[in-house]
Parts: sequence; C-alpha cells; structure tokens
Amino acid sequence: MIHQIPAGTRDVLPDEMRELRAIEERLRSTFADAGYGEVWTPTVEYEQVLAAGGGEAGAAAFRMFDDQGKVLALRSDMTVPIARVAATRFAGADGPLRLCYSAHAHRVVGQRTGQQREFLQSGIELIGVPGTEGEAEVLGIAVDALAAAGLARHRVGVGDGGLYRRLLAALEVPAQRHRELLDCLTRRDLVALELAVDELGLAADARDLLVELPQRRGGPEVLDRGAGPAGEALDRLRDLYGDLERRGIAERVILDLGLVRDLGYYTGAVFELYDPAVGFALGGGGRYDELIGRFGAPRPACGIALDVQRVHIAQTAEEQQS
Amino acid sequence: MIHQIPAGTRDVLPDEMRELRAIEERLRSTFADAGYGEVWTPTVEYEQVLAAGGGEAGAAAFRMFDDQGKVLALRSDMTVPIARVAATRFAGADGPLRLCYSAHAHRVVGQRTGQQREFLQSGIELIGVPGTEGEAEVLGIAVDALAAAGLARHRVGVGDGGLYRRLLAALEVPAQRHRELLDCLTRRDLVALELAVDELGLAADARDLLVELPQRRGGPEVLDRGAGPAGEALDRLRDLYGDLERRGIAERVILDLGLVRDLGYYTGAVFELYDPAVGFALGGGGRYDELIGRFGAPRPACGIALDVQRVHIAQTAEEQQS
Repeated sequence: MIHQIPAGTRDVLPDEMRELRAIEERLRSTFADAGYGEVWTPTVEYEQVLAAGGGEAGAAAFRMFDDQGKVLALRSDMTVPIARVAATRFAGADGPLRLCYSAHAHRVVGQRTGQQREFLQSGIELIGVPGTEGEAEVLGIAVDALAAAGLARHRVGVGDGGLYRRLLAALEVPAQRHRELLDCLTRRDLVALELAVDELGLAADARDLLVELPQRRGGPEVLDRGAGPAGEALDRLRDLYGDLERRGIAERVILDLGLVRDLGYYTGAVFELYDPAVGFALGGGGRYDELIGRFGAPRPACGIALDVQRVHIAQTAEEQQS
Repeated sequence: MIHQIPAGTRDVLPDEMRELRAIEERLRSTFADAGYGEVWTPTVEYEQVLAAGGGEAGAAAFRMFDDQGKVLALRSDMTVPIARVAATRFAGADGPLRLCYSAHAHRVVGQRTGQQREFLQSGIELIGVPGTEGEAEVLGIAVDALAAAGLARHRVGVGDGGLYRRLLAALEVPAQRHRELLDCLTRRDLVALELAVDELGLAADARDLLVELPQRRGGPEVLDRGAGPAGEALDRLRDLYGDLERRGIAERVILDLGLVRDLGYYTGAVFELYDPAVGFALGGGGRYDELIGRFGAPRPACGIALDVQRVHIAQTAEEQQS
C-alpha cells in the first residue's frame, strides 16, 4: 500500500491551516472592500484554453484525456481562466470589471527542487482600465492586502515585461538569440547574460546598454539615465511611479529594469511582491492587454496574484525578527 | 479557439460565489466550534491511495500519469485522503481525532445527465470514537451546520450500510447475485429489486423480508417489526436513535432500512441529509471502521460531507417557499 503523496504536494494540518485560512480571509476582504467580486472556475480545463496564455502559463503540470480524447489540464494560474470568463460570461459588459479569486493552481517544477507543484493563489484582475491608472489601482490593493495579512515591511518590484524584448529588436539582435538572453534575465543570471551579450559582437554602446540596463534597480533615479530605444518604456514607468506616489505607496516601490516575468501574456508593466524577511517573491502580476482578445473580446487588463503559503511564511518570519 | 469548459464543470460568478463562501464559512465555524480542525490534502494523489476506498470512492473521474509513469488521480472525496493523513501524520495520536475540510472533489458522471463532475464538499471526520456515540456526535454537528447555513426544515436519513448485505448472506442468496440486488437498492428501484428477488426462488418469508425490509422508512416504529437475521442491525439503530433523542434531534431523523450508500468503505451506520424544498440529498456519510486500517493504523471512524452548492440551492428554495 502506497502512503506517499506526489512530489511537490503536501498535507496541511490544522494549526497551519487555521493561519492560512485567516490570511486568505483577510486578502479576500481587502479585495471585496475594493469592489472586486470573487469568481471560481473549473479545476480542470481544456488544455487549448490554458495554452492561450502562452509560455509558462500554457505549460500544464498535469495533463489527461477526457472520454472523447480531448486533452484536459490543471490550470497553472487563474488569470487565463478569468480571461476566458471575461470574454464569454461578461462579453457585453460595459465599464471596468473587477474580479478576484482564491484557488489552487499547479505548475511544472524541476525534480528534487523542493518547489511546490500545487499552490494556493489569491489575486485580483482589473479588466477594462488601461495604462498606469489600472496598474496603480492593482498595486495599491496588493500593498493593502499584504498589510491586512499582517505584513509591515513588504515591497513592490515594478518593471516592464516588454522592455528588454523591444530593446533586443531595436538593437537588431538576431531573433534566434532572444530566447537565450531572456532566459538569463528570467533566472536573474546577470553574469550569464553578460557572456551571452558579449558573444553577439555588438557596438560598444549597444552592448553596454544590454548588460547595464537590467542592473538598474532602486528608486526613481534609475529612470533618469538614458535608455536609448527603451526610453518610451521608462517614460511609462515614470508615469506609473507618479501615480504610486499620489497613492502614498512610492516608498514601497523598487523600480527594476531587469524584471521579466516568465508568463507568456504580459504586454507592459510587470510586478513582483517581496518581503525583506524572506528570500523569495510572494507573488506577482502585470499588464496583459492582449490575452482576453485571444478569447474573442479584446479588453486591456492587469492583475496580481499572491501565494498564500508564501505570505504566511513571510508573516511568520517578520514576527520572529521583530 | 475553444471557449468551452469540460462537461459537468461550471464557472461561478460573483453573486453566487458570495453566497457559497458565506455558507462555507458558516459550516466551517460550526465545525471549528465543535472542536474540528481543518486539513487540506493534495488535489492530485496516487490512484493506489484513492483506490483504498473501494467502490465509487475508488473510481476516479480523471486519471493521469506522473513523470515516472505512476497513475495519479483527482480525489473523489476527502474521506480517503483524510484516512491516509490519520494513519500517517497522526499515527501515534491518542484519543479522538476531530478533522474537517472544505475542498473540491471530482466524481464520474454519466454523459448528458446534467450532473456536476466537480463539487465543493465541506465535512467532518471523527476518528477514534466507536459506535453510536461517534455517529450521534457527527449527526448532531451536521444538523447544527445546516441550521447555521440557513436551513430550517432539514432532515437526516439513517440506515445501516451493511444490513442488506448481511441479510443476503444469512438467507444464503448466491454471492454472484448480491451486486445486482444492491445496485437496485442503491438506485432506490424497489420494483426492480422485487423482480430480482422473485427470480431467486426463495421461501416465502425470506422473499418477503428481502422485498419488504428496505421499504421500511419513518419514525422509530420501523424498528419494531421483526427483521430475522437483520435483528442485530436494528438493535444498533435503536441505540443510535436513543442517542439522537437525547441530543434533541430525533424529530429530524428518518430511519430508512433501504438506505445503502454507494461508497465502498462503509461498515455500519450510513447517513443522508435532505431538505423537503429540494429533491436530492444535500450530503451523506457513515461509519467506516476498516478504512484507516488499510493505511496501516486501524481506528474506528465515521464522518459526513455536505455538498455546498446543493445546500445553497436548498437554502434558496426554502426562502422562496416561506
């Protein structure tokens, strides 16, 4: 008789479960108070629907056949299913749509990495509000939600998910090299990035921009230096930073020009959430203006997701350090 | 581009989701107040673990391979995973173990039956309390939980899941005919049952007992008539009824000698929950004294599960009728 559970999954016992439910409940109340209505989507969907997310979002951890031989999969996030819901059940809706969720998802993890394959995400999706106004609302709510969950020292990383890709195109780096360079950046391996850029044999100023720009990380001063063909992206980040200052959360923001989220659907601003008490991101998100259109009803949108278990670990770590 | 979702699954939009969460929260509070601690188990488990439940509980709606070729499946209830947790994580625990859950499960449904393949269950498992004392505690909490969820007219069906099987054995009905007769009873098809019993060519009193006993349904008077070899089961039901009277919930009880739950692990008392406002069971459960032992650490146990969506439909129906 097997007693084990699959790698990357776990049993949660009552003491921990009580605390996870309390965090989940506080996140949900914060979202509800901000006007976000919760939705639930099926645990299992057609793989073709989930693949609309592209990249990591399209790579299902578990796949199976239904009784008609169609491929089903467990969702790897809630953003793609909610894009489907927005394009089908709310196709005719005018005005912004504010949806939230709290649900388990599954991702592909390497063997023996100790990473969780199943995780509980709570998050929001703001549909129909373009530009920095939408992004600032989402970030403001994420900061409030983490405070409600008991964190005090959390930070927000803000970058542009398309910046480096546009830079590579503008500097005429051959398309077949993009994947390798973006992978270095996704892994935050700036040494490997520099080696890979050197192999391209570019002019010195182009080479320096590709190596140095993703290292810019900090306050608004990182937006002051020249960025060549990436100047437009920096202008948008400056606007977003202004919005975040007006919301009073600028002191929590870390501008990060090397931030690239590995989900395939981001088109502009990308976010990550951190806490100095722990060494991993608590969640992330960004703008995905083209995803809902892939289901037939184009609308601009952005969102953010929190990993409830990681938020719990950060909350415990903050308590122990204070 | 496919926009559909798999048959038997659904998207839940905010108005309904708010009400489902409210019900879930009230059930969870009732369980917590009664001393039950919530657990969470992986959405996906090894099929061999889930198969320990036998029968319906072992029949997974979705199966898949992991990267080592082992068969994984989506759970069809939470009782089998919690039996595994009780035998592994609480193997050395003394005294009763009180666990609860609120989680989605998946069952096999016929095509075009309109039945839900994915459903949200909230329930309790009481481990280490044998006999009618354990059963009465579980039923008392289920009645309280439904009242907390807004129901007023709910009822509890109580039978013995092994009664008919023992009757067939005692009356020396050939073993190869048992499945057919039990299937008639599970479907509540008493006409088909009578035809099948007639084919057995038994003596008149044995034939009459097999046809008439499962029709006995009502108050404590159904326990008064003779039951031949099933007399011992009726004695136990009489004890349980006495316990339920002392708890003040006897007026909600319907004794039902034809009640057979189709899960493979029940060994004694079985329960179903009803509301006169709707035509389907809101949940069910029973005693499963042998299941935890299949994971290596035998303990008596019983439990009950509520289908949150069905409780919601019943609550709405009660409101409309009042």
